Parts: sequence; C-alpha cells; structure tokens
Amino acid sequence: MLSLVDLRTRLSAGDLSPEGAIRLAQEAIAAREPEVGALVCRHDAPLVATRGPLAGIAVGVKDIIDTADLPTQMGSTIYAGWRPRADAAIVSRLRALGAVPLAKMTTCAFASVDPTATRNPHNLARTPGGSSAGSAAAVAAGMVPLALGTQTGGSVIRPAAFCGVAAIKPSFRLLPMVGIKTFSWALDTLGLFGAGIRDVAGALALLADRPGIDLPEESPTGMRIGLVLQDFAGEADPEAVEALQAARRAAEALGAVVTDLGLPEAIAEAWRCHPIVQDYEARQALAWEYAAHRDALTPLLRAQLDAAQGLTAEGYDAARRQAHQARRMLKDVFSEHDALLTFSAPGYAPAGLASTGSPRFNRLWTLMGVPCVNVPVPGPGLPLGVQVIARFGDDGRALAVAAMIERGLRAGVGSVS
Amino acid sequence: MLSLVDLRTRLSAGDLSPEGAIRLAQEAIAAREPEVGALVCRHDAPLVATRGPLAGIAVGVKDIIDTADLPTQMGSTIYAGWRPRADAAIVSRLRALGAVPLAKMTTCAFASVDPTATRNPHNLARTPGGSSAGSAAAVAAGMVPLALGTQTGGSVIRPAAFCGVAAIKPSFRLLPMVGIKTFSWALDTLGLFGAGIRDVAGALALLADRPGIDLPEESPTGMRIGLVLQDFAGEADPEAVEALQAARRAAEALGAVVTDLGLPEAIAEAWRCHPIVQDYEARQALAWEYAAHRDALTPLLRAQLDAAQGLTAEGYDAARRQAHQARRMLKDVFSEHDALLTFSAPGYAPAGLASTGSPRFNRLWTLMGVPCVNVPVPGPGLPLGVQVIARFGDDGRALAVAAMIERGLRAGVGSVS
Repeated sequence: MLSLVDLRTRLSAGDLSPEGAIRLAQEAIAAREPEVGALVCRHDAPLVATRGPLAGIAVGVKDIIDTADLPTQMGSTIYAGWRPRADAAIVSRLRALGAVPLAKMTTCAFASVDPTATRNPHNLARTPGGSSAGSAAAVAAGMVPLALGTQTGGSVIRPAAFCGVAAIKPSFRLLPMVGIKTFSWALDTLGLFGAGIRDVAGALALLADRPGIDLPEESPTGMRIGLVLQDFAGEADPEAVEALQAARRAAEALGAVVTDLGLPEAIAEAWRCHPIVQDYEARQALAWEYAAHRDALTPLLRAQLDAAQGLTAEGYDAARRQAHQARRMLKDVFSEHDALLTFSAPGYAPAGLASTGSPRFNRLWTLMGVPCVNVPVPGPGLPLGVQVIARFGDDGRALAVAAMIERGLRAGVGSVS
Repeated sequence: MLSLVDLRTRLSAGDLSPEGAIRLAQEAIAAREPEVGALVCRHDAPLVATRGPLAGIAVGVKDIIDTADLPTQMGSTIYAGWRPRADAAIVSRLRALGAVPLAKMTTCAFASVDPTATRNPHNLARTPGGSSAGSAAAVAAGMVPLALGTQTGGSVIRPAAFCGVAAIKPSFRLLPMVGIKTFSWALDTLGLFGAGIRDVAGALALLADRPGIDLPEESPTGMRIGLVLQDFAGEADPEAVEALQAARRAAEALGAVVTDLGLPEAIAEAWRCHPIVQDYEARQALAWEYAAHRDALTPLLRAQLDAAQGLTAEGYDAARRQAHQARRMLKDVFSEHDALLTFSAPGYAPAGLASTGSPRFNRLWTLMGVPCVNVPVPGPGLPLGVQVIARFGDDGRALAVAAMIERGLRAGVGSVS
C-alpha cells in the first residue's frame, strides 16, 4: 500500500517530487485497476500542486461527492454523466492543502447496499464491502494513499475491515457534508481510508484543521478499554471473535486494562431504531429519484424506499428520542472507559459480489455520532479488522488507542493463531 | 393577498379549478411583477395537477432551492443558468401534494446579505428585506399563496415583517434541507411565507406530514407568554416597540398572561456566538466559490468570507458549546412559558435598496433551533410584525399562539394607535 505518512516524509526530504508521488499512484492504478475495478473515472493528466502539506497526495473520492472537474454519478444510471457545478467542501479542502483529487471511486447506488462490480484486492472472488467499495479497494490495492468514503450504516468501517486497510468514521459533522449526496442527514458521515492508523490520523488532522487529532509522540498509557460484543446485533463469525481477542491481548500487552462490557438496553434499543431514522430521511432525500426514476433505481434500494413509504413522523420521532437517550447513556459509559473495542464486521468479506456484507456491528455507532476507527488485524487469511470507538468529539483518542492496538498486533503480541 | 386556506376552500367546493387557481397567481404576477421584481424565472405553461391537498396552489421557491425543471442560480453570476439534476426534497414534497412550484424567487447571493433588486410591495422605495426577498415580496403582492424561504440569521422572519406577511421558521430540520445550497449547516432552516397564520400552519402541517401542527379548532386558553426585549441585541425602533405592546395587549385581551422576561446571560452570550458558528461553516460551505470565483462574489459576502478565513476550530467549538448551554437554559424558560413574544425586526423596512435590514432580533432563535412565527401587526403605516417563539418541536404551539395574537390584532383589541 501507499502510506500517506511515508510519502510525505519522502516528499519533505526531497526524495520524491509531487509529480513523482502522483505518478506512483497512476502506475499502481494502471497495474491493479483492470482486475479490481475501483474507479469510475479519473484524470489522466492532473494538475499537481507543488505546495501544501498534501502536495503530491493522490486522493480517491467516492462518487457521491461532488467534483467540479470530474463527473459525479452516484453509482446510478439516473446521474449518468452528471457534472456538478462546484466541488464538495471536502474536495475544496483537499485542493487547498495541495492534494490531487485524482479519481472518482465506485459506490453502491446513492451509498446504499446494491453491490458494485468492484472486487476485493485480497481475493478477487469476494466483495470489498460497501457502500464505499472503490475507496476501500483502491487503498488496499495500493492505488492511492488516501480515499474519501461516507458511512450511514457501516459504509466506511465495514469495507475497511474487508479490505485490510485503516479507516476512520469521525465524529458526526467533524468533516463537512456540503456537496455530498444525502441519504440520511442525521447519519451520513464523511470518512477516510489509508494504509495505517497514522496515515488516516495525519489526514484527518489536516482536513479538519485540528492538529490535536494527530497521533501523540508517545503511546497513551493506562487506557481503560471496554470490550463490547454487541450481542443485540447477533453473533460474529469465529474468525472475527478471534481477531477481537487478538486485539484485546495486544492492548493488554501494552498496558491497557480491558474489561468486558455489556451495554444498557436503551442503547441496544437505539440500534434497533437506526433503520427507522435512516429510511424515513432517505425517503425524503431521494424523493425526486423515487418519484421521477423509480424504475431506474437499483433493486435493493427500490425495495428499501418502497418499504420506507410506510414510515410515520411519530415512528421517526420515537426513534430519534431513543437515539438521544442512548447518546446520554453512552456518555456515562465513556466516563468509565477511554475507548470501546468491538467488531468492525461479522467476519471475512462475503464470497461473491452479490452482497456487500452486513453493517450490523457499525450502525449503532453511526447513530451515536461517535468516532470509529478500523484497525486491520494481521493474520494468515483474508483481512479482518476490529473497531475502536471513543466519545463524541474525541477523535484523537480513538486514533491513539487504535494506533496502540495496531502496533501491538504488528509486533505480534496478540497475533491471530 | 392570496390566502392558501381560502383557495383550498374554493377548490374543494368546486368554485375554482386548479387551473383557475394557478391562473389567479399568473394574473397577479403579470400585474405586480414589473414593479416588484420578485421573480427570477417562472413556468409560463406549468403542468397543473388535479389531485392532492395542494392542487391548484402556486408556490414561489427561493432560488437557492434546487428545481429540476427551472434554473437555480443562487442569486449569483457564478451559477448563471445553472440547472440542477434533481428537485430539492421539499420541492418533491410540494409536487407530491399537488402543488405547482411556479417560479423561482430572488435571493441575496447564497442567502447572505447583499441586497437584490426586489422592491417592497408596500412601498417600492424600500427593501423587502432579505435574504428571502422575492418569496416575502411575492406573497405580500398577492402573486402566490405560498412561498419557500430559508433562514440562517433572520432571512425568513425579517422580510415577512417588512412585507406584512405571515411566516414560520420551523424547528430546526423539521423540513428537509436536501437540495438546498448550504450556508451554515447548523443554522440553515427552511421556512414558509403565507397571507396569514392559518395559511402557513396548514401548509406546514401538510409539508411535514404532521397534522397536529395545524391550528386547533379552539384558540388556546391561559397561555403564559414571556415578553422578551432582547436588549443584548440593542434597542428596537419606537414603531417596533409600539407593535410589540399592541401584540401584548391583544394576547392579554384574549386571556393570555404576559410577563416581562429577561433572558439569562448565557443565552445573550449565545446570541454573540451566532456569527462564529455561521461564518466558520460558511467558509467551508462556500469554499469552492471562494477559491475559484472570489472576484465574482458580491461585495458584502466576499468581505464576510475574507474575515471568516481567520476563524479557528477552537473558536467554533467554544461557540457551539455556548449554544448548547443556551439551548438547555431555554428549555427551563419554556417550562414556565408556553411561548415567547419579541420583535421580528428592529422597525420598518429600511428606505432604499442598499440594505436588507438587520437580523439582530432573529439570529438567537435560529441558533436555538426553535420555531418562530411572524405575526403581521395591522396599522396605518408600513408593515410591522412581532415574533412568537415556542420550544423546539412545538411548532403547533407557536402557530396557535401566533394565530390568537393575529386574531386579537385584527379585531383591533390591541391595535397600534
């Protein structure tokens, strides 16, 4: 993979020019894209800024994020060839930092669940997950050092786990959503994919203009970590359970105190409410597409919106109240824990391309608005990941704990047998 | 003015056809538009639905709200001739109810403060206010029975007061913002203009699919109303003070208990924080326009964005914390008051077209996210209005109290001398 931090080091040392760094990405795309299929479109001869902290960094942009200089097609024939007028706010921010938004990445239609044709770089017969399929796959295949995704249920953390890359779904609205196609305004969250935790930490600190988010010099000590199984969401597969235990051992080996933690029933109930909030808003957000182009919608999304027509304002209000109550209770949980550790996905990436896998271990945290980080778990088989979660607004803490676990796992202190 | 409720009554009685109702709007536009200048563009031969609760209702749509069948130009040359792909969610909702989005209405560029060329229908030498200039003016001139505006500071309630029409800025996110150009995602709120309170109440109940918002059969009794001068925002002009006293007398004559209420300092401090939240987000929301088209920005907005470049994440976080604290304190205020009554604007619409007037009596309530209703105050001079405010989510209460005060004022029980 292309590490953003490594590239920046070589760039500042003068060992690599911004053009040269972009060329690395272009060469990797030329080599891997034919089999992976992560890109929708790209610049062949991009303008490369020579200044800025992200000069020379090629970025993959999920194709529901507006770009003024490349089409934005939402993974849907309804937007075939569509050219927005403006860049999304996050794309403008990337450019201001010197980065090159090089390519648009495949997405499930409107960031929902109908699979793309993108393949998992670690096993071409498997899904990379979704909905940010191309963004996760392209980073995993070493095509770009940074990619933008969005998560409404589990569309960042899940594909990151399936593809073996680091990712963060930051605190709700830490990164601006302006110019990104809405599915659910209470849930949609912009996220980042990178080779390792320090890569996404550095990128997030720059994009959010909050240097405090970047990793500290020293690993945090004495972390109190709650291990959460989310049994309300069903059981995970054995390989995911083993990965979670490996992460636990890695954290403990580095001095963390890890305790088993059951979540209050009100929080489990909020998990059940997530689809109501999501689909009641999606019905409004995609009202034009549904009214004017229902036949052109992908089948799973069409069925989802058909069912959503029956949702009521009362049901939506009750779901939001439940979420509000759960957020307050989660604050109490975080008064006794620095971070939570849980599954990123139920197990390996599903075989075939018929499903993007289940977001069931992700959606609660999206509804809570808290920062979530996927830590890849090294092992002999397909990629696996674990999820580190911190309190709302404490993205730096989530990343620091994730980096500690990543370090432990890489050193083999908790390695999967 | 065209009353939405009156039109619906005539339509259901069969005294008027949907086509006939739309023709009334078209005839009024032909008569008044040349001198008022409220429209950006319109349909000359619109498709008129024959079914739906809003069949026959012509709607004016602020020109930052996307329409698939008419240009959306944001009041800016940067978007000259721009055609969005989709309707905004609220426009889809209007169509689903049978309404006819007939015309796009003038707006200050990007819903900020640079004046439009629109004139106040009550005095062509004065501003109609802004930023929802065309929407307020068109309803006041009787061109349309319903118009959509948005408010980030005071862009719905202020022009409604200046133009002598009823309006509601509902609870934050009661109406969907999808497909509306963002200025500040924490503040931007979709609102409605109509001839009277019952017109905007009926429209909001339908658009939000919440029948409980519509006016009750019986006027509420024993209302506890807090009269708020917002002295932290400066003094109002004598005519506005007189209008507020008239509204107080009207409410008292109908059995309300009106008490003078000073707001806690933390709430006044939140008022001071509003511009920080707004401008920190506007800098991001309009980053593409600022980076790629700074010279084409209108001068006041350009200066505002220039200044906003100096804002910091720390300042923004502190402002949001202050707003959060104020929202909690405001809950306590509403445990002892059913509604608040205050100024809608500092006084009459300013003379000339160089300024859209001040939002200083509006911006606190936008930041608080609470429903605000402008009640026109009848009198011998230019239009004036007062503002009725209820707790978050209690839009029906705000409208019911507003309707009571409107009734008292119309009956002359508290009339302006």
